[in-house]
Amino acid sequence: MRRGLFITLEGGEGAGKSSQIELLRKKLTDEGHDVVITREPGGTPGAEIIRHVLLSGAAEKLGSEAEAMLFSAARSDHVEEVIRPALEKGKTVLCDRFIDSTRVYQGGEGKVDMDYLYQLEELVCENVWPDMTLILDIDPEIGMKRANSRRTGKQKPDRFEKQQMDDHIRRREAFLEIARREPERCVIIDAKGTQKQVAGRIWRALNPLVGKRGRGRK
Amino acid sequence: MRRGLFITLEGGEGAGKSSQIELLRKKLTDEGHDVVITREPGGTPGAEIIRHVLLSGAAEKLGSEAEAMLFSAARSDHVEEVIRPALEKGKTVLCDRFIDSTRVYQGGEGKVDMDYLYQLEELVCENVWPDMTLILDIDPEIGMKRANSRRTGKQKPDRFEKQQMDDHIRRREAFLEIARREPERCVIIDAKGTQKQVAGRIWRALNPLVGKRGRGRK
Repeated sequence: MRRGLFITLEGGEGAGKSSQIELLRKKLTDEGHDVVITREPGGTPGAEIIRHVLLSGAAEKLGSEAEAMLFSAARSDHVEEVIRPALEKGKTVLCDRFIDSTRVYQGGEGKVDMDYLYQLEELVCENVWPDMTLILDIDPEIGMKRANSRRTGKQKPDRFEKQQMDDHIRRREAFLEIARREPERCVIIDAKGTQKQVAGRIWRALNPLVGKRGRGRK
Repeated sequence: MRRGLFITLEGGEGAGKSSQIELLRKKLTDEGHDVVITREPGGTPGAEIIRHVLLSGAAEKLGSEAEAMLFSAARSDHVEEVIRPALEKGKTVLCDRFIDSTRVYQGGEGKVDMDYLYQLEELVCENVWPDMTLILDIDPEIGMKRANSRRTGKQKPDRFEKQQMDDHIRRREAFLEIARREPERCVIIDAKGTQKQVAGRIWRALNPLVGKRGRGRK
């Protein structure tokens, strides 16, 4: 059986990744794909435990390299338990955040050496690399407004969302830099406008890949 | 300032590592060493959180490679926060378990590829490798009896200690195999007999290293 497609979505807070993944799932399902949606950090029971440790702030006691390795441990579990088995069954996997978020959040701010992260990626991904990465690009001002309006009174911003606007600006630039360096894998999607508009841009970006590899797929 | 000595102690349950580390600390202190004692998994607040996750059984949900990476995340924190800074201050570091326990407990039972573990070691240790590793070797029957008699009625055996005798036999062989493959770093210490007898063997094994590098040290 032909290996399924592995598509990752990346981008800062409020770029609309969750909504777009859901819209993309529907569209791909209509086209005959058997779609699996997953996310990082998390995606498996074991990885969810690590996600909890990481997002709760308990991991703030860890050094940056240890933190990056903790994310990688969760990713390793996620790849072995969910992503690889799904791809081997010919399924299309949509993953909310993957290696590029680690590069941007842990590496892009100079806390961890990029070569260290690349070596971790090699260990974790082996032969499971995204076929395409959609980088949802949004002006951080708009993104933060969207992210804030999403929250109800009771939900607190998590550890990463609390960080400042200039962090968001740096991260946006880091995502764009990844796209410039790996144009064969990464597509920048303008995330301004309505959900429908953004979904249209995503579908056009995916079309060559889905057209080439997805046709005839049950 | 001259870099301190980094000595690790390894061996199965009941080999007497904890007692011997304490005796060795006294002896080295008498000889003018500034000694730091630490242990794995753990050794830092962040690593202790991971230790708790690993030993509680919550990590049983993780795949073997993710588990190995979790141990490495704890080790990374431990090396950066405790071991490297101490060595750079010229201190002698005694560490209860280090890379060889990961090799034996995660790698030696065929769960994780050894090359995967070696690559993790390179990432974690960089230029912090043990100057000497003392492998306390004990017949698993005697070791298990010692470990059991150490426990009071209320203490339950932890996740690893519950495992079976044939695991212990396999692990003993795996530790001995490491010593055969890296004789320049590893010394096998016969852990039979009294604490004093074993301490004498350890001191004789360390003597060339301590004599060569430790003299004149305050």
